[in-house]
Amino acid sequence: MAGADSATRSEDAAPGLILVTGPSRPDTDRRRITEAAGPHEVRFVDAVDATDPALAYAVAVAGTVPGPVLAAAPRLRWVHGWAAGADGNLTPEMLASEVVLTTSVGNGAIPLAEHAMLLMMMLNRDVPRWMRAQQDHRWDRFTHGELAGLTLGVFGVGHSGGDLARKAQAFRMRVLGCRRNPERTVEGVERMYAVNDLHAFLGECDMVVVTAPATDETLGVFDEKAFRAMKPTAFWICFSRGGIADDAALLTALREGWIAGAGIDAHSVEPLPADSPFWDAPNTIITPHNGATTAATARRGLDIFVDNLARFATGRDLVNVVDKAAGY
Amino acid sequence: MAGADSATRSEDAAPGLILVTGPSRPDTDRRRITEAAGPHEVRFVDAVDATDPALAYAVAVAGTVPGPVLAAAPRLRWVHGWAAGADGNLTPEMLASEVVLTTSVGNGAIPLAEHAMLLMMMLNRDVPRWMRAQQDHRWDRFTHGELAGLTLGVFGVGHSGGDLARKAQAFRMRVLGCRRNPERTVEGVERMYAVNDLHAFLGECDMVVVTAPATDETLGVFDEKAFRAMKPTAFWICFSRGGIADDAALLTALREGWIAGAGIDAHSVEPLPADSPFWDAPNTIITPHNGATTAATARRGLDIFVDNLARFATGRDLVNVVDKAAGY
Repeated sequence: MAGADSATRSEDAAPGLILVTGPSRPDTDRRRITEAAGPHEVRFVDAVDATDPALAYAVAVAGTVPGPVLAAAPRLRWVHGWAAGADGNLTPEMLASEVVLTTSVGNGAIPLAEHAMLLMMMLNRDVPRWMRAQQDHRWDRFTHGELAGLTLGVFGVGHSGGDLARKAQAFRMRVLGCRRNPERTVEGVERMYAVNDLHAFLGECDMVVVTAPATDETLGVFDEKAFRAMKPTAFWICFSRGGIADDAALLTALREGWIAGAGIDAHSVEPLPADSPFWDAPNTIITPHNGATTAATARRGLDIFVDNLARFATGRDLVNVVDKAAGY
Repeated sequence: MAGADSATRSEDAAPGLILVTGPSRPDTDRRRITEAAGPHEVRFVDAVDATDPALAYAVAVAGTVPGPVLAAAPRLRWVHGWAAGADGNLTPEMLASEVVLTTSVGNGAIPLAEHAMLLMMMLNRDVPRWMRAQQDHRWDRFTHGELAGLTLGVFGVGHSGGDLARKAQAFRMRVLGCRRNPERTVEGVERMYAVNDLHAFLGECDMVVVTAPATDETLGVFDEKAFRAMKPTAFWICFSRGGIADDAALLTALREGWIAGAGIDAHSVEPLPADSPFWDAPNTIITPHNGATTAATARRGLDIFVDNLARFATGRDLVNVVDKAAGY
């Protein structure tokens, strides 16, 4: 992800149409969007499809853009995705086009880091055991762990990983990171490993939290060898994207006790089918890709778009621009 | 709690017997205790009772000491309790005696603060709803809260409350405190209220966490008026001692929606009886006085006792000395 990009130049900035998808919005939000758009006309739509004649005039779209739309929109210069991850808009057509792609990355960082802390504590303390006892009105007091003193490994240290490191430090954990660019340090992260050193990194960790985007480099990186490199007492948590773990390898790791358990918010198939074996996997907590689903996330996402829209309308550099080759 | 006290003077320090209760201990722990005791003889016992003839020689006891034991132990100068709270040893006989009482306070501060963060997140995100959905293999995605931006109120800001403030700050919460001595500031606590201002304090809070000891001043302080002073969207959490809330008032507050829910680790009767209405109270998470039950808590508790024992044996001031009048 580049910090900024010269997405717009004033000579290209003839007024056009901006299509904005998304939920039904209160009038105050619509006004904010319309005002930020400056000379451009804003149209609120449910979705974008390639047969819409309005595409001839579209200069920007906020939402998910199917590949064929790009061919039908010759004036299109900018696509903004509502998700933090770029993967939903990285079609082959988008990869081949010069349209600038931005995302809402960062909008859910804080609640995602909270979700990771929650899952770590639920696994460390065996919360499901307390919940079963409460259901049965049973006093079931037992010795459990504490996070203090444990080593947390963050795989993919972006917005949410950085916030997570800060929280884990306050919990007196040791924090390690593993990322594509290990030379970029992050406050609170004691040591940053390169992806080549994944197995050495995993061998150090009591908690592994996957916050990485889904890219060619990350998909399937947690395979049998990776799970075997983890401590048998360690827990694996993922809230970013499914598919970064090989599902079969993860399931074997859980069933054979190569790892102690898992907290899974992001799944390779969503919604997770009722017959998925993960629902009943040992020591596994399942949440429905729900870590960042807060009112504040929606508000921060709108703030990012409105800021970018004002930049677009006035010919300034956009933020959250996706590096299409890197995939995020 | 005084920081230190002249518990022992060398002229009183004739060698005697030290009775140590507690679980069966590994030899390494027994050796640490015996070495710290210096000239005194250590005897490991299951419990202390007033008919034990050895009490004639006892100069110190580590454990719970029933009132009549004090009369049977004329040389007794020091009692150390294994719990963080002093209440179990504050018998009328102890209040009337000159025996110095110390506690293990601080041994569980870190895991207790973790437990409070866990309960706050479980209530804020409605974890029981996810757990029910997982049991049923149902994808139940919903909008929930986040802790960032909420106001945490800590009632009784001692060891665990201070650690909790630090953690809550990293979670971007605003932290308020309420304590007997409001002039004592605590890092991370934006404003400290006096107990007289309890209701004003409660009106500010989205999360109220009770960490106070059980004393004449705190028992029953959360009555109907206190729960009515809370926001209807706020949650109430207690991990220190039962009885600080009036049970009937708490139950009414939960059932009538004066507050949004509760996380209760410390109960007025323990174990909580199977027919207690709290097991099924609305939006309530019950844990069995289990917040600090970790191996590290036991280790820190032993460290505190061994340190005090070495101090006792060499005539130095003890730490964790209880202010009997204050009750902690």
